[in-house]
Amino acid sequence: MFTIDSVQKIQDMARGAVFLGAGGGGDPYVGELFLRQQLTEGRHAKIIDATELADDAFVVVMAGMGAPNVLVEHLVSKVALMRLFEHAEKYYGRKVDALISGEIGGANSVFPVALGAQMGVPVIDGDGMGRAFPRIEMTTFSIFGVKATPAFVMDESGNFVSFDIINDHLAEDVMRSVCAALGSMVYGIFFQMTGAQAKKVAVLGTISQSMEIGRTIREARDHCDDPFEGLLKYLNDPGTGRYARVLYDGKIVDVTHEIRDGWHWGKATIGNSTGEDDRFVIEIQNEYIVARRNGRTVAVVPDLIIVLDAETAEPLTAEMLIYGQRVRVIGYSAADKLRLPESLAVCGPRMFGLNEDFVPVEQLV
Amino acid sequence: MFTIDSVQKIQDMARGAVFLGAGGGGDPYVGELFLRQQLTEGRHAKIIDATELADDAFVVVMAGMGAPNVLVEHLVSKVALMRLFEHAEKYYGRKVDALISGEIGGANSVFPVALGAQMGVPVIDGDGMGRAFPRIEMTTFSIFGVKATPAFVMDESGNFVSFDIINDHLAEDVMRSVCAALGSMVYGIFFQMTGAQAKKVAVLGTISQSMEIGRTIREARDHCDDPFEGLLKYLNDPGTGRYARVLYDGKIVDVTHEIRDGWHWGKATIGNSTGEDDRFVIEIQNEYIVARRNGRTVAVVPDLIIVLDAETAEPLTAEMLIYGQRVRVIGYSAADKLRLPESLAVCGPRMFGLNEDFVPVEQLV
Repeated sequence: MFTIDSVQKIQDMARGAVFLGAGGGGDPYVGELFLRQQLTEGRHAKIIDATELADDAFVVVMAGMGAPNVLVEHLVSKVALMRLFEHAEKYYGRKVDALISGEIGGANSVFPVALGAQMGVPVIDGDGMGRAFPRIEMTTFSIFGVKATPAFVMDESGNFVSFDIINDHLAEDVMRSVCAALGSMVYGIFFQMTGAQAKKVAVLGTISQSMEIGRTIREARDHCDDPFEGLLKYLNDPGTGRYARVLYDGKIVDVTHEIRDGWHWGKATIGNSTGEDDRFVIEIQNEYIVARRNGRTVAVVPDLIIVLDAETAEPLTAEMLIYGQRVRVIGYSAADKLRLPESLAVCGPRMFGLNEDFVPVEQLV
Repeated sequence: MFTIDSVQKIQDMARGAVFLGAGGGGDPYVGELFLRQQLTEGRHAKIIDATELADDAFVVVMAGMGAPNVLVEHLVSKVALMRLFEHAEKYYGRKVDALISGEIGGANSVFPVALGAQMGVPVIDGDGMGRAFPRIEMTTFSIFGVKATPAFVMDESGNFVSFDIINDHLAEDVMRSVCAALGSMVYGIFFQMTGAQAKKVAVLGTISQSMEIGRTIREARDHCDDPFEGLLKYLNDPGTGRYARVLYDGKIVDVTHEIRDGWHWGKATIGNSTGEDDRFVIEIQNEYIVARRNGRTVAVVPDLIIVLDAETAEPLTAEMLIYGQRVRVIGYSAADKLRLPESLAVCGPRMFGLNEDFVPVEQLV
């Protein structure tokens, strides 16, 4: 168990969450603001290890749902969060023992921590993706047998919609359509599970991981060190078996953004300053889903593609990419659970309309 | 109180409901089939006058929701209806004393009668429109203060979505989006109200009216009389103060149909057999919303525009209109409640994008 009890820890976590968002998930800034306010009011979030949880504990996911561009601009109110939590206990008819994030990447890393701080409920160090993904069935919860519904969403105006849907793919479609009809920003409670289930199906340790990523970048900057050095060292820690490399270093020479069906679609082309005909293209579907160097795939979902400011190593969400920006792109192996065949069937390249199979980034580089 | 205890009565009612549908509401044929099956199993619906209802009785609307073309092809199952009713009593935590139709025009006239027959629950002789309209806030319930939600919808697969939405216009948008995501056909329970409210806000007597319309057409055919004569006589009954006239007699020379956003859009042009340059155009937005003769409006919502087969007086829904068909068009004054200013603000011409104010059909003709 540890606490997120300083502004620095909050900022570290938020920065790490943007990194793990792989371009998507939304900027956690509004959640970060909320969390900082909690801190000034003397409340802070308790983060617990899943092993600290009783097997029969009652755990739910709390998440915001919406187009990232709306999510980023929509301030979350204390009253709305409190009402959400009270509804959760009423709706399920049980006391909520712990919260867990559905998606560590982006805004949905911070929201459950904010809610946990406010309500005095612990938050499990883990999530359902180890990154960001655009759909609710693309979680290890859903893939390994925990259903997203019964679930409900609310908005700030007091609209309330509850769902009991036979499968999570359909649940995503139905919830997304409600979200669009309600103005593209709702908060919800999903994935009721036991402590035993949480331990088994979650991607564990990802809050710690996001804080470590944020801390590594911050400390390198403070000491005027190269932030990429410490970052790559941390990400390639042999203890985790994970792999990370800089895939490309260059300048954005073209970028397109389109909001369609509540999703962010786009494409960023990065050129090499040497002036050679060397082009690195990243496709965006909320997240960075594939990176190709001169047409050859060098990283693809579920592995993480992360675009960072070339100098400060600030991770950049897809909507932040602009023409002329100097960036470095990191490829980072996904959490083991996401690379299993049952996961690739749900969040592998073909589920994003790509005509290729998943190949681990360490084999592509 | 009366009962719908013969196939003839069911058919009369269904035909009258298509008439009052003013082109929309969907063909009640599947509901009719269901009702006939109930009859062969010895169950029939009890239709009660609203005055027979206790003021504190608990009344709800049961309706199908979906694109008319899907509605027409989708058979309703006994199990699904029973589950719907059981859910209603569980959801509201009250015994349902009576059902009422939201929309007498089309399929939603028959569904509550079918459910009432199956569950042994009386159905109020009345509805929320006295015709058909495409949106849930276009009901006298909503206009005169009964909220559509808390409400819920289900589909045949067992998907369940419940709603508590701050206003009925938004409720319609949210429900419609859920309906589309679930495959365009759901059943739901809406508009919880007391007996006292039902008496006050409903358009009363519309089940009887639909049965009378159907009977009049049938009997004229049986006796080889002109079916239009009896029909117009019934509709213009001075006791009701309502007004009906044949607006045009001709042949469909052009018709367009388009399904967009779950709605049926279209336009029918009717030509006069005299060969003159006399054109009668009806615009379709699920229902027939405006009729213009050579550019001049002769009937407009909420007044009813009804297209009938010129020979048999069979009322035709918008999706049934085909090129070459000989038709007669009747203009029929809407129920008084729909012509009040507060109603016109919700279901008058401008709410359908028409750039004109409502003028009663009796003044236009």
